[in-house]
Amino acid sequence: MAAGIEDVARAAGVSTATVSRALRGLPNVHAATRDRVRSVAEELGYVASPSAASLASGRTRTIGLISPWINRWFFSNVIEGAERALRAQGFDVLLYTFEVDRQAGRPRVDPSVLRRRVDGILVVGLPLEPDEVEVLQRLGHPMVCIGWGGFGMVTVRLDDRQTALTATNHLIGLGHRRIGHITGAPDDVSPWSPPVDRAAGWRQALGEAGIEASPELEVHGHFDTPGGRASMHRLLDQVPDLTAVFAASDEMAMGAILALRDRGLRMPEDVSVMGVDGHDMGEIIGLTTMAQAAGEQGAAGARIVLDMIAGCAPPQEVVYPTRLVVRASTAPPPRGRPSVVRRAG
Amino acid sequence: MAAGIEDVARAAGVSTATVSRALRGLPNVHAATRDRVRSVAEELGYVASPSAASLASGRTRTIGLISPWINRWFFSNVIEGAERALRAQGFDVLLYTFEVDRQAGRPRVDPSVLRRRVDGILVVGLPLEPDEVEVLQRLGHPMVCIGWGGFGMVTVRLDDRQTALTATNHLIGLGHRRIGHITGAPDDVSPWSPPVDRAAGWRQALGEAGIEASPELEVHGHFDTPGGRASMHRLLDQVPDLTAVFAASDEMAMGAILALRDRGLRMPEDVSVMGVDGHDMGEIIGLTTMAQAAGEQGAAGARIVLDMIAGCAPPQEVVYPTRLVVRASTAPPPRGRPSVVRRAG
Repeated sequence: MAAGIEDVARAAGVSTATVSRALRGLPNVHAATRDRVRSVAEELGYVASPSAASLASGRTRTIGLISPWINRWFFSNVIEGAERALRAQGFDVLLYTFEVDRQAGRPRVDPSVLRRRVDGILVVGLPLEPDEVEVLQRLGHPMVCIGWGGFGMVTVRLDDRQTALTATNHLIGLGHRRIGHITGAPDDVSPWSPPVDRAAGWRQALGEAGIEASPELEVHGHFDTPGGRASMHRLLDQVPDLTAVFAASDEMAMGAILALRDRGLRMPEDVSVMGVDGHDMGEIIGLTTMAQAAGEQGAAGARIVLDMIAGCAPPQEVVYPTRLVVRASTAPPPRGRPSVVRRAG
Repeated sequence: MAAGIEDVARAAGVSTATVSRALRGLPNVHAATRDRVRSVAEELGYVASPSAASLASGRTRTIGLISPWINRWFFSNVIEGAERALRAQGFDVLLYTFEVDRQAGRPRVDPSVLRRRVDGILVVGLPLEPDEVEVLQRLGHPMVCIGWGGFGMVTVRLDDRQTALTATNHLIGLGHRRIGHITGAPDDVSPWSPPVDRAAGWRQALGEAGIEASPELEVHGHFDTPGGRASMHRLLDQVPDLTAVFAASDEMAMGAILALRDRGLRMPEDVSVMGVDGHDMGEIIGLTTMAQAAGEQGAAGARIVLDMIAGCAPPQEVVYPTRLVVRASTAPPPRGRPSVVRRAG
């Protein structure tokens, strides 16, 4: 039988209320008493029930982390960065994933599971509907979005438009004129979102260079490698004289590279490819990219939500820059490109 | 002010105890009463505090998931598989990472944080010391290890020895005789562990083919890409006539490929490389590998820990097979290989 709070109180010669306050680090307990209670508790192997402590203090020391995926590059790195920053402050992470199905969509975020279990919420790369934001906000917990925010929420994000401008200008500077773009999902109608802003930046760069961003140059890759591959095939069917593609993520860019291989096209001799992320595998694949610090964004979001719990006013947003990393996947366009290339197999 | 349990009891015309039982789905409540209580609770926006419910019932409906990393291929896929399987059963995941530092080691797993917060524990790919296993077991929670178990714990794992046998025999079958192996950390002295078993399988395959597994053929890559790269450089220094390497993970194999590039060596013409995992980027890199189903292992571990919570006797271990996936990174050895190749730069 484990020691109870009464055992600790008896052995330390104090009330159970004092034991509770001492072990939870609350004020109005003499330092000497606190130390005595703690050493007695340790000796007896007593650990305060966090559930009981949270009922008493209203603090769970837990952050709910909502994310559509764990095993994609951006998500796993943000989650790891956030978890380490929270752990360092003695906070736990309750993990909630909501798989986004390409056909069926995803289940609605159900905030009731979060109500009394967490002190704050981190939303990682999840495009929330306005009504979902509203029910989450009604929980009354501090909430920070990472990568995908908007609707008045505190957001840690990239300078998505500048990222796309720099990327597209890199391709234009190499001499490309027929530059496709692989963006997210077709049902993304957010006024602001990473894919919407990246597409806008691509369009702006083309416009500034006097190049028309005609609709057939833009395809939807759903932010994964199979989606990038399928959309690159569509793009090559629609735009036979394409010489470069800017994908809104490295994983979609990798899919585009696989599509080029499917058709026996060479990279970068026939088509240049670049992405956004700075994926760990970018070096080995030789992928030009706009690199971002995903782990740091997770840590920043964690620090902000903890500050909000402590009563500090948060910034409206924290914007991270990206950095152009030029590798072998981008080069000047071919002089005379075959006009139509059919899909192999 | 949110509605309390008393408000629900009053509105439904029952006692607070009945409200509590009805909302927690416990027996001895008439179906009609339960439905009335639930609809009243919903109407008033009342949600039972899970902390209070867990104190009353001893059930947190939460699983503690301990892992050294989130952002590596095996770990992120196992965690995602486990989280989805647990979520489907209405269980939450409390995430604990313990970073393993190559020099400093890692902090000891401190089970006190888990004591009253979880109903069960999943340990993902974490080499626990015997005394850590003991303190975790003393918590009295069902516990399942995934990928790295031993010490009498219920374990979901690969057939590591067979995996290494098949991999090494693939290289021997291509005609290789000087086959290096990149294993885990030098301080891994477990009687059983994935890297120890994979190294044993490599040694066994060489022995069965009459090839000496001399010590200079084995290097430590620490299961990450930078470690694989550095260890491949050591291997090429130690074994100038090396023609193939079997790495115990795809990420280390990718590091080995980078080391070959550093030296201007061609793959597979000069050196063949293969790994273990079936990493998402294996296709684009053209990496031969022994593919495993990581997400399924996470889901299996989750189902077992839930079965144990429900009182079912668990299997001692669940062993998953791997599958040889042959790609462009492995080929017959060169006929006349340059005898010494120095590191570039």
